Amino acid sequence: MSDAVPLRDAPDALVGPVEVVGAGLLGTSIALACRRAGLEVLLTDVAPENVRTASGLGAGRARTAADAPQLVVVAVPPDHLGAEVARALAGGGVVTDVGSIKTGPLEAVAGVPGVERYVGGHPMAGSERSGPLAANAALFDGRPWAVTPHPSSARRAVALVEGLVRLCGAVPVRLSPEEHDRAVARTSHLPHLLAVLVAGRLADAPPEHLALSGQGVRDVTRIAAGDPALWQQIVTGNAPAVLGLLAEVRGQLDLLISAVENGERAELGALLDRGVAGTRAIPGKHGGPVRPMRSVFVSVPDHPGELARLFADAGASGTNIEDVHIDHDPGRPVGLVELLVEEAGAEQLLASLESRGWVTHR
Amino acid sequence: MSDAVPLRDAPDALVGPVEVVGAGLLGTSIALACRRAGLEVLLTDVAPENVRTASGLGAGRARTAADAPQLVVVAVPPDHLGAEVARALAGGGVVTDVGSIKTGPLEAVAGVPGVERYVGGHPMAGSERSGPLAANAALFDGRPWAVTPHPSSARRAVALVEGLVRLCGAVPVRLSPEEHDRAVARTSHLPHLLAVLVAGRLADAPPEHLALSGQGVRDVTRIAAGDPALWQQIVTGNAPAVLGLLAEVRGQLDLLISAVENGERAELGALLDRGVAGTRAIPGKHGGPVRPMRSVFVSVPDHPGELARLFADAGASGTNIEDVHIDHDPGRPVGLVELLVEEAGAEQLLASLESRGWVTHR
Repeated sequence: MSDAVPLRDAPDALVGPVEVVGAGLLGTSIALACRRAGLEVLLTDVAPENVRTASGLGAGRARTAADAPQLVVVAVPPDHLGAEVARALAGGGVVTDVGSIKTGPLEAVAGVPGVERYVGGHPMAGSERSGPLAANAALFDGRPWAVTPHPSSARRAVALVEGLVRLCGAVPVRLSPEEHDRAVARTSHLPHLLAVLVAGRLADAPPEHLALSGQGVRDVTRIAAGDPALWQQIVTGNAPAVLGLLAEVRGQLDLLISAVENGERAELGALLDRGVAGTRAIPGKHGGPVRPMRSVFVSVPDHPGELARLFADAGASGTNIEDVHIDHDPGRPVGLVELLVEEAGAEQLLASLESRGWVTHR
Repeated sequence: MSDAVPLRDAPDALVGPVEVVGAGLLGTSIALACRRAGLEVLLTDVAPENVRTASGLGAGRARTAADAPQLVVVAVPPDHLGAEVARALAGGGVVTDVGSIKTGPLEAVAGVPGVERYVGGHPMAGSERSGPLAANAALFDGRPWAVTPHPSSARRAVALVEGLVRLCGAVPVRLSPEEHDRAVARTSHLPHLLAVLVAGRLADAPPEHLALSGQGVRDVTRIAAGDPALWQQIVTGNAPAVLGLLAEVRGQLDLLISAVENGERAELGALLDRGVAGTRAIPGKHGGPVRPMRSVFVSVPDHPGELARLFADAGASGTNIEDVHIDHDPGRPVGLVELLVEEAGAEQLLASLESRGWVTHR
């Protein structure tokens, strides 16, 4: 990073105005978070109705030619990022974006004057809904938000973008653009594509076979329901990193097929062991070390109020519930609820629930 | 199915005694369900301590040579199923098993006298824990339980096994052994193996890249944590069906790699569309048609009692919560909880929660 090129009067602190280009889910949510902090927000969108909707939600006002934003946040689909970042740089302010891929847009603006004022960003947040009506100022609460300076990014530009991240309640995670793209290829794009391949096999299945679907296949395939138009752009935009991992998976798949075909149990076991190791590599909640957890299963009648009663009773035991899964059962009005708690608190929770008449499954 | 060979005094109703061979998680849970219904239960296990533990839990008593069970439930690891089913058939009673694969054990007993008294079974239930101490009479509540008669299975033997399924609170789903194995290859074994391949890529990842892990990769890889020793037997035992699907996935993976490599957006889009179709093919809760659902997101402080308060408030709105996910956030003590509800009730729930001071994310 360089401080050689002075930024136009940019103080290190984010004071606004902030321009948001693209008043969709992410852009409008950022705008609302800035407004919540008292900053002036200027809105731009190719669709004037998005600006009107976002303004109506209190996310800011339409930008005019006279406005000079301190920070421009480009929140447009991946295909348009490079062009919009270049256009924003012409205005003289610091520019960031919220795209899922970071090297592509950077290459597109490499020769653009003022590129030292560009610092990429990528909040790890979203929703199955889209558009300004789905926006919320608290969307980024507690989420990681990658901040990806390039070698010539000005230090003060980086500080300003990290200021935006904190103002939105998120946690800045600094990575180079190349590292970021390799990271999300592995933690997001590859899982998405393999979930799609598993789900694709279900589309071909005889319906009577699907009656045996359990929670496992539902969890594996859930993200495959994501918007194909958006994912097409993401995968294409991160092609080099994605292709590297897909090639690795192809090699592992060939090993797997050969192990199953030839009944090579040791090879099959080694692949399965590596999968177990991978699940343990994902960091624990709050980024801390992984604590030993245990699942507590409880049968719950499937009507309003029963989950409330369960959580009230669980809360009374003083145990903090880290995660919940409700198993979808095909035949009867009883659901199986899995409560994930720290190992140390599991027995206390079980005893407490049983004393209140719950049917638990150890 | 044939009624040609008379069953030894077997009435259509399950009256016991029931012998359980293998007093692990599934065997002991079935034993407890039978005891709950007042049936006599006989226990057999290569490990005498398992019989002692299960007896101590009230699951029955050790079998003696003089006992003549009406129904034998073989609940041993996949590798030993064929031998144990054959041994059980020699006793003269009806025999079922709870193995994850159904054609292999059947082939192993094809020429055994009394094979018409064998009817395979496979309850879609389990736990991350194993052994008799993890057992519970309610483990099967509302779960599908495949019942897989072969062409010469006696009708009364099928009725007896379906009686056991209902006594355990599960829902019998009748399939041929071949259909069953093809069904679980698709809905269980393939998702498991691809989750393993995704998780395997995480084991190789630089830790700083894993900081960007979100809920998606956690869901896709969760089942890859399953016991490699057991999964080795399951996958090997269902090799033909698994290999067929792995070959299909390999073909789709090649198409995917080629589409990404060559920037063929239409081909990539078609693959992504097929994934979306697959997620929609999974039957809805209670086996009914898939109803339109919507996710409601709520910020929840991460300490005991807050989830209880949320569910109490959600319950007060009269909306039935179909599923729950708690997002693991790396940076701060606020969790994002996703409540899945029927579309029709979502606005009412949101309004109700907001009126009670919850921060929701539309």
